[in-house]
Amino acid sequence: MANVGMVGAGSWGTALAILLSNNGHDVEVWSIDEKEVADLNRDHEHKAKLPGVKIPEDITFTTDLEHAVTGKEFIVMAVPSVFTRGTAAKMKPYIKEGQIIVNVAKGIEDDTLMTLSEQIEEELPMADVAVLSGPSHAEEVSRGLPTTIVVGAKSKETAELLQKAFINKVFRVYISSDIEGIELGGSLKNVIALAAGIADGMGYGDNTKAALITRGITEISRLGIAMGGKAETFSGLTGIGDLIVTCASVHSRNRKAGFLMGQGKTMEEAMAEVNMVVEGVYSTKAAVKLGKKYNVSLPIIEEVNKVLFDGKNPQDAVNELMLRSSSSEHGSMEWSK
Amino acid sequence: MANVGMVGAGSWGTALAILLSNNGHDVEVWSIDEKEVADLNRDHEHKAKLPGVKIPEDITFTTDLEHAVTGKEFIVMAVPSVFTRGTAAKMKPYIKEGQIIVNVAKGIEDDTLMTLSEQIEEELPMADVAVLSGPSHAEEVSRGLPTTIVVGAKSKETAELLQKAFINKVFRVYISSDIEGIELGGSLKNVIALAAGIADGMGYGDNTKAALITRGITEISRLGIAMGGKAETFSGLTGIGDLIVTCASVHSRNRKAGFLMGQGKTMEEAMAEVNMVVEGVYSTKAAVKLGKKYNVSLPIIEEVNKVLFDGKNPQDAVNELMLRSSSSEHGSMEWSK
Repeated sequence: MANVGMVGAGSWGTALAILLSNNGHDVEVWSIDEKEVADLNRDHEHKAKLPGVKIPEDITFTTDLEHAVTGKEFIVMAVPSVFTRGTAAKMKPYIKEGQIIVNVAKGIEDDTLMTLSEQIEEELPMADVAVLSGPSHAEEVSRGLPTTIVVGAKSKETAELLQKAFINKVFRVYISSDIEGIELGGSLKNVIALAAGIADGMGYGDNTKAALITRGITEISRLGIAMGGKAETFSGLTGIGDLIVTCASVHSRNRKAGFLMGQGKTMEEAMAEVNMVVEGVYSTKAAVKLGKKYNVSLPIIEEVNKVLFDGKNPQDAVNELMLRSSSSEHGSMEWSK
Repeated sequence: MANVGMVGAGSWGTALAILLSNNGHDVEVWSIDEKEVADLNRDHEHKAKLPGVKIPEDITFTTDLEHAVTGKEFIVMAVPSVFTRGTAAKMKPYIKEGQIIVNVAKGIEDDTLMTLSEQIEEELPMADVAVLSGPSHAEEVSRGLPTTIVVGAKSKETAELLQKAFINKVFRVYISSDIEGIELGGSLKNVIALAAGIADGMGYGDNTKAALITRGITEISRLGIAMGGKAETFSGLTGIGDLIVTCASVHSRNRKAGFLMGQGKTMEEAMAEVNMVVEGVYSTKAAVKLGKKYNVSLPIIEEVNKVLFDGKNPQDAVNELMLRSSSSEHGSMEWSK
């Protein structure tokens, strides 16, 4: 039984708070939004973000950040990527040496090209920062559907502590030391989800989508390995697994925005219609910069970037990808005769 | 421009015949079924298997196997896996030294544990046997939707000859030397498609399915590498790519049969309702035997086998998979502190 501070009351934070509470932990959830906190304490349901899902009555919600993060065995960071750095900075006065913080959001900062855990570490150098990622729609987790996920940490001790806290009979938790690979896979998948959405919007089928997913994870993997991630992470739950869920989902904002562009809308029109932050648009910019920095070829991501920012016709982008000089699937190989 | 013999007039054989004809080749298609051949020569449409798709008039259909396979630059084998060995044996008198034969079907022989290309080679030792595989619904290929695929061959020369014959602006062909890995991925995916279908039938969501696909390809990869396949093949188009298409498809017989079992039907009831050969049932048996032979742990495949043949309740199988002793995702790893 642990005292847990949950920073953020979105759908994912709320779903994980419920899971941790059901696992027997004391959970206190912070949100910056006073109305949201009042509603949650009164209704024990997040009507906007997880409608119909009962929140256990012993979960408390607060706008007092100091109270939410002080004296906790671990803190879960579940705020949108654009608010992660700022929220971490506000937590600084209350964070003690060695405090375990597990980040569950995803993203790359466009100007610094830092992952979220790197940003948290920069703001909170005394913390022991871990990550949790994998193919996991919040809504399905909150309904108790079988889910697998990975905890990444610097030490096996921290990884196992978090594994024990989160695991239950419908939530299988693996551990990993490859924080970098986990975060890159989680962030860059949104670029491929945009591409998959564009293909769907153009009326293409399962063959095209499977090709984009498979060649997409190859690109992500190539870049991620150049940046220090491990190959097996990209072929695992936080890599291809999360990518599959996102590209198949009718709920993904990235896929939806892509779909609209595939139907002929501009990026601005698609953003306006989706009416929410489309993470993949920022990640595409960051990925193209990272590809240049690490000298890695990223044909799909570069075409997505051209469709997003240069007004390139998606049909021309597909033609270019299909007609690149034919080659072997995986670099060099030996022939048996 | 090549003379091509197509052995088999199912949906995949027909779709590839159309593609090769559109690429400018002379294609002669053999089928054992006299009525099918007569209908195809008259209608220029395969009304049962590819309804609505026009077949070019210069494709000829025949029941004369000798004529179909003699004097061809390459022969495409597109018969169901259970008929591959027998058909190859019948072709023997007409096959010359070095004849290129590209097999496009998938399966493992239950008693010998041989892949299809190994069976063809055993029957036709004079042939140069290659394979073609990847995420490719026949119906989508016949409609010209963008598709990627891999040709596997023993020599780069043969691989490139086939690549040039098949490639066009909506059909991107990669080459590979890993015939073994390509065939194992293509055959064993059907076991995981059964598992994905079972999960869908039980009402589970995208999280569960992504977990099955991701952990499933890990099992296939582990076994395939032990058998001589290459890791990158399993993370490529013929591995994870083909698996994604099959598990997402509402047309897959394997997924459909699994779905019925997930809803409580027995294997026999599911087979009767699907009313067609469900390749994955045979592949499951073969995979379990291969796992024992190569001493590789295959937890998902073994649970599918128990559901199929030991009447195990799918719910119990899921519980067992979720509650296995928690562990790291990818064997051993180094921790940074």
